This record gives sequence, C-alpha cells and structure tokens, in this order.
Amino acid sequence: MKLLRYGPAGAEKPGILDNDGQIRDLSAHVSDIGPEQLSPEGLARLRAVDVAGLPVVIDPRLGACVAGVGKIVCIGLNYRKHAEETGSKIPEEPIVFLKATTSLNGPDDPIIVPYGSVKTDWEIELGVVIGQRATLIEEASALDYVAGYCTTNDVSERHFQSHRGGQWTKGKSADSFGPIGPWLVTSDEVPDPQQLDLWCDVNGERLQSSSTADMIFDVRFVVSYLSQFMTLMPGDVIMTGTPSGVGAGFKPQRFLKAGDHLRCGVTGLGEQSHAVIDFRR
Amino acid sequence: MKLLRYGPAGAEKPGILDNDGQIRDLSAHVSDIGPEQLSPEGLARLRAVDVAGLPVVIDPRLGACVAGVGKIVCIGLNYRKHAEETGSKIPEEPIVFLKATTSLNGPDDPIIVPYGSVKTDWEIELGVVIGQRATLIEEASALDYVAGYCTTNDVSERHFQSHRGGQWTKGKSADSFGPIGPWLVTSDEVPDPQQLDLWCDVNGERLQSSSTADMIFDVRFVVSYLSQFMTLMPGDVIMTGTPSGVGAGFKPQRFLKAGDHLRCGVTGLGEQSHAVIDFRR
Repeated sequence: MKLLRYGPAGAEKPGILDNDGQIRDLSAHVSDIGPEQLSPEGLARLRAVDVAGLPVVIDPRLGACVAGVGKIVCIGLNYRKHAEETGSKIPEEPIVFLKATTSLNGPDDPIIVPYGSVKTDWEIELGVVIGQRATLIEEASALDYVAGYCTTNDVSERHFQSHRGGQWTKGKSADSFGPIGPWLVTSDEVPDPQQLDLWCDVNGERLQSSSTADMIFDVRFVVSYLSQFMTLMPGDVIMTGTPSGVGAGFKPQRFLKAGDHLRCGVTGLGEQSHAVIDFRR
Repeated sequence: MKLLRYGPAGAEKPGILDNDGQIRDLSAHVSDIGPEQLSPEGLARLRAVDVAGLPVVIDPRLGACVAGVGKIVCIGLNYRKHAEETGSKIPEEPIVFLKATTSLNGPDDPIIVPYGSVKTDWEIELGVVIGQRATLIEEASALDYVAGYCTTNDVSERHFQSHRGGQWTKGKSADSFGPIGPWLVTSDEVPDPQQLDLWCDVNGERLQSSSTADMIFDVRFVVSYLSQFMTLMPGDVIMTGTPSGVGAGFKPQRFLKAGDHLRCGVTGLGEQSHAVIDFRR
C-alpha cells in the first residue's frame, strides 16, 4: 500500500494511492495515518479495504505522510563518499541525532531558508517508519518492526550545525527541514531496502545520485542498533543518512537560496518537489 | 497552580495540588495535562475551577507532569563549574540537543540503568514547559511563552554520550532518563526562575547543590534563542542544564548502579525520588 495524507496543512485527511496512481480518500475507514494505523493490526485492517470503492481526490496538497511522529531519529555520515566529502572519518558505529518533529513538511511544500541562515543544504535520504514498539531488538528480526519506507530530505543548515556551538540538532530542526513523503510505502512492497536508487536535483541539475546499497550501516542494523539506546515507537521516523553530493561537499560550496527548486526521490517511494523561499517573520 | 498527572503508567489522569498539599482529581474538567491545557486559555479555564470541591486522591503514583510532549530540548554546559568539571570550555552560545520523548518518566519511578551502560549519571535541572507556539520570539517577551516550570533530571549515560560515535543524543535518550515533575508549577507562582536552588542526593549524600542564578544563559535568553532554530510548541519541555556535581566530574568518577537511590529537587517545584534498577529485557 501507498498511504498518504492530503489536504490543508494541519487538517490533513488519510488517503491511499490506487493501482492507477489516483489518490483515494480513506476518511471513512481511519481518522489519520499515524501510529495506530501503522501497527501490524492497523495495516491489516487497511489491507482489507476495497480501494476501488473509495472516493477519488483530484490533485490535493500532500502533507507529511505520517501523523503523530514521536521522534525523528537521524543517522549521520552513513555513506562512505559523503563522509569523505565532509572531511570526516568513516564512523565505526552509527552517528545518531534527533531532528525536531516541528521540522516535518509535506513532499511538495516550500523549504524555508531560516532566519540567519547562510548554508542551507539538501540531503536526500531513505526514510524508515516504525510500526511496532522496539526495544533491544535483534538485527535478524529488525525489519519486522518497520511499517514502511518513504522519501525524506534531511534539510540542514551547515553553519548552525557545525559553527554555532556543538551539537548538530541546531542545524537540523528548522520548520520545513523535514519533508517526508509523498507516501509511505508499506514494507511488503519494498522487497529489499538496500537496493533503492536515491537522487536529488537542484534547479534541474542532478547533484546527488546513489543507491542504498552503498550505506555503511544498513536498515536492519540501524533499527536494531537504535533500539539499544531508545525505544522506537510506531510512527517514529528514521532518516538513514545521505549519499555524497550535498552542497557543503562542493568546491566552492553551494547552498540553497530563495528562488531555487529542489527535486528528489527514491526508487518506488515517489518524488518530492520543493520551491525554496525565505523565512518571513 | 501545581498541575500533575497521576495513576498507572500510560493511563494517567489529570490532577492538581490543593493549598493543603492534597492531590485532587481534575478529570471532570480536562482529559489530561497537555498542550491544550497549557495554553493561556487552557490555564485560565483551570484557574476558574473550584479546587476545594474536587475529589481527593490518596497517595497515587505520579506520572510525568506533562502529556503530549512534542520535544525535549536540552541545554548543555549551562553552569560554569559544570563545564569546568567536564573539562569543557565555557560555551559562547547555548549547546542544544534533543532527548527522545520516550525517555519521559514519573518523578518517583525507577531510573533504569540501560543495556550495556557503564556510566549512568545524574543531572538535576530546571525544566521549562512551553505554553504558546514560539518562533523567533524576542528575549524581552520570552517568558510570556512559558506555561510553567518543573523539576527535571537529564539522566545521561556518559559512555554512550561521548564514546560511541559523535552526538550526545545517544547517551540521553534511554527509557526512564527523563523524569519530569512531581508537578508543573505555573509561571505566576515562580516570580523569578533565576532564583531557585536545585540539588541532587545520591544515597543520601548531597552531590549537586546550586542555584539557577548561576546559569550562563538564563531562561529568558534560552527560550528566545531556541525559537531561532526551531518552533517551540505548547507542551515542549526545555531542560536548562545541570550544575556541577555530576558523577563524571568526581575523581574517581562515580556512577549509578542498581540499588542506588536518587533524590533531587528544585525550590518550590517539588522533589523526585528514584530507585535505580537494572534493565531487564
């Protein structure tokens, strides 16, 4: 299933993509696409719905594809060439940080260059959405705890991240810095999360192009690893790291400014399209 | 008002402390103590309640004093002597990191030494609870966005925090590492958040004893500063940093182990009391 949320920001309704790529309204069956719906039982109930009988929705705004996200857990430097382009060592264990849930954004919403920003950068990433409470789970069973996958962009302000005192969170958490979607693709439709191409274009130029096969720590390992340090809950989103080709890696460096346009996607998980705009108070 | 949540974990009810220190049940008036109730309008409605007419609750378990916490934003090294004891420089700007909301815990619940931990440490802190959405707010008006204050403990695993690859979050987010309460004291009852004593005892020995007067960055500044980097929402909790006297600062270092007992508190905001226990799978 490809589950989604559509409608005005803050008033999204649940939806599903049908086999013809049309959006259908799921409101008669569930109140939202969130932790309750992402459990194995919740997904089983959705699988029983006759999608062809649901109302078609024409060209709505799409919201973040998951509601009620309790935390966004991010992996840093999880692709070798990206670690190299940032001048960092290859990590021996996953680097973990959290991104404020207030950064969540729809897949076609503007990305807002925040107040004081000088280095707003892109990071296409594979998003993993948790479907079952996970504490200290084994690597072998880790994918059983995943409800599905989505396209994400871990938008980052490099100056805030690295030159404003210590921890990365400060550069990761601005409003609009966490677009997820267009839809959540349930795990059964993603036979191997390590065989997905991911790409990002800025103003029509392809700047990131890689495959999840190049991850240093794969999804299975990451989910198990994180569950040693914190309990993962249904609806939690893991951003699994970005490949090379971010703006900070170019010489000279390149960053987003108002008027730019960002497109990015992951095989089978859909594309995002973002106008870049300036912050307004 | 001193607002609280009582009852079994995961099924807490809203409550309020009356003038005699008795807990009264607020269920007839609100469903919980969360973002909706912490807004200025929500607090005004609660102020109109006749507390003396509410049912008394005898000696319940207390839960985390706020429900629906969207994020826990923490300030690192915000007391000079604490920065010194950790061998760190005095920060030029606040160090900011996030703590997983799944770490939240009641004020008298056990603190669980997590799997693989070798250095579980204590950090008494003043907690600030947001009552209004705050984006890029001025320092002068920052306290208007605060619903109230509470005792918090930013429990930390030092090995995970500093020696397992990069970012502090990994050592801050274990289940039970974020006790808040016993109650949320509304701002009107805290005339000056920079004149509060805070202390922490381990096995009856006072190891932290300081005053919020010693903060490097005060609450007003911190709330305004954070709102430059992320939108703060009602129910968000800010942990404002710990004074000196943490286990990692002793020579030799001292850490928590099963069987230890932790007590901590902040003037006027109440005390916490935690048995320390080992993780069980």
